[in-house]
Amino acid sequence: MKIYDLNESNVFEGDIKKFWVHDSPYFRIINFNIQAGKTFPVHSHNVEGQLSILVLEGEGEFLGKGEKALPARKGEILICDINEPHGVRAKTDMRILVTIAPPF
Amino acid sequence: MKIYDLNESNVFEGDIKKFWVHDSPYFRIINFNIQAGKTFPVHSHNVEGQLSILVLEGEGEFLGKGEKALPARKGEILICDINEPHGVRAKTDMRILVTIAPPF
Repeated sequence: MKIYDLNESNVFEGDIKKFWVHDSPYFRIINFNIQAGKTFPVHSHNVEGQLSILVLEGEGEFLGKGEKALPARKGEILICDINEPHGVRAKTDMRILVTIAPPF
Repeated sequence: MKIYDLNESNVFEGDIKKFWVHDSPYFRIINFNIQAGKTFPVHSHNVEGQLSILVLEGEGEFLGKGEKALPARKGEILICDINEPHGVRAKTDMRILVTIAPPF
């Protein structure tokens, strides 16, 4: 049992600042802080599994295949397969929490 | 690819209101809204895997084995094995997001 305080990783540095929250054979949890105007590029990995992207703070867009862009506001959570193209574009400074199950 | 809006499940009803966010072979995601003064009782399941409990809103305590109680404020995330005793006591109205990997 461990507790991670996301209030302590409320740090923006460079385009995207990455904080490892947790890693295990079951899931990996990462906090990314993306500066306004920056993009976490669309990508995918050819492995089994799914991921969630929760918007903790700020707003922007969830990105998908092609030109797909869906509103991403605080409290919205995207769920997709790891092998499905996904990304995030920050309109304001944006904090997201990504959970990957299982890690690869 | 799907998006769930946690702003739409900001509903308190009975002691604990449960909203299913997602379920798959990889992870299960549930939003629980716990009324102030109420407790999500300590429990555990004898299966492999881990879970995370993120405090979305409000504050209270993460509960563990015996009398263990640790502060649980907005932005704090507890990670533990599914077979480890865990629970939550709400001091204020409290919203939590639970991710279970893998589901059982």
